[in-house]
Amino acid sequence: MNHELLKEINFIVEIDKLKKILRQNAVIGKERRENDAEHSWHICVMAMVFWKYFEQYKANMLKVIKMLLIHDLVEIYAGDTFCYDDKACENKKLREKEAAERIFSLLPKDICSRMISLWQEFDECTTMEARIASCMDRLQPFILNYHTQGFTWSKPGVTSQKVLKRNEILKELAPELWEYVLNAVNDSVNKGYLRR
Amino acid sequence: MNHELLKEINFIVEIDKLKKILRQNAVIGKERRENDAEHSWHICVMAMVFWKYFEQYKANMLKVIKMLLIHDLVEIYAGDTFCYDDKACENKKLREKEAAERIFSLLPKDICSRMISLWQEFDECTTMEARIASCMDRLQPFILNYHTQGFTWSKPGVTSQKVLKRNEILKELAPELWEYVLNAVNDSVNKGYLRR
Repeated sequence: MNHELLKEINFIVEIDKLKKILRQNAVIGKERRENDAEHSWHICVMAMVFWKYFEQYKANMLKVIKMLLIHDLVEIYAGDTFCYDDKACENKKLREKEAAERIFSLLPKDICSRMISLWQEFDECTTMEARIASCMDRLQPFILNYHTQGFTWSKPGVTSQKVLKRNEILKELAPELWEYVLNAVNDSVNKGYLRR
Repeated sequence: MNHELLKEINFIVEIDKLKKILRQNAVIGKERRENDAEHSWHICVMAMVFWKYFEQYKANMLKVIKMLLIHDLVEIYAGDTFCYDDKACENKKLREKEAAERIFSLLPKDICSRMISLWQEFDECTTMEARIASCMDRLQPFILNYHTQGFTWSKPGVTSQKVLKRNEILKELAPELWEYVLNAVNDSVNKGYLRR
């Protein structure tokens, strides 16, 4: 049988593991933590729904969605790093770079390189597509935390200033979405979901 | 605050429920059943990886992925219907049509109509984009069943003939993928994962 296809199937089987990588936040209802596969799906639909707030940048939507689909695959080997844990974030870059090479090299050469550059572009966050993708990746756990009475925000070290800082990319790119974040942060502080 | 944005956020919050809709098949490792959000993510990555087998049709990949992202949202209200249960499939069409109107009408008018026609196009399965999307939607549970020793196939009424029939769309559109299905079905019958 086609050798390239076997490699591709093997990759599709391997990435099934993303469904077992738990994130810090919970699903709405708080029955359990969310996993990376669910998160990746959710942010892609958000890109479809919120696209109008980014329309002016004439970005390539397909590229944004492709990035969002694969951006967390590195966590299959590198694990989920809690974004408000400065210590864990120190060696995150290196761990994830190695993981990207490991996971994507399961694929045939051509598509492997394309996947690695797509992941790198997301990681560097300089192109417009990567910045829009990053907006979705930040906003989604924000919405889930707001709708779970601050499930992740109750952890040590999280403050409204840090949450705002983490979502700051929205301020410049999508003022309407940033306004939503500001309102939700104020409301969360008032309700005691988030420390001032 | 922007009234349209509030509707959009509300939709994003509502579709979080897709993470709780369990499918018939299990994740690889069989720890638990897969949910619709995970499945939707997985088939989108498959569309990226297997695109070369469909390249000749010059289809719109973004449209295929958008369909795959939203195709199962109707199951939030209509539930997952076991594809080999003929009785449950009888009123599936109507139940899902109503569910589509209910879920997408949470969105502002414009995007609501666009989402409904995208979902309808997938459901009717006549355009090339819808047919490619359908290939992914069929092949993914097939791969998961093959890699879980026939987790779903052990249920009453499932035979190799029915499984082949369900994946037949691959035969015409992507002969390489169909060859994989044939091999995997033979192997599964030989190993006792699937009744002849």
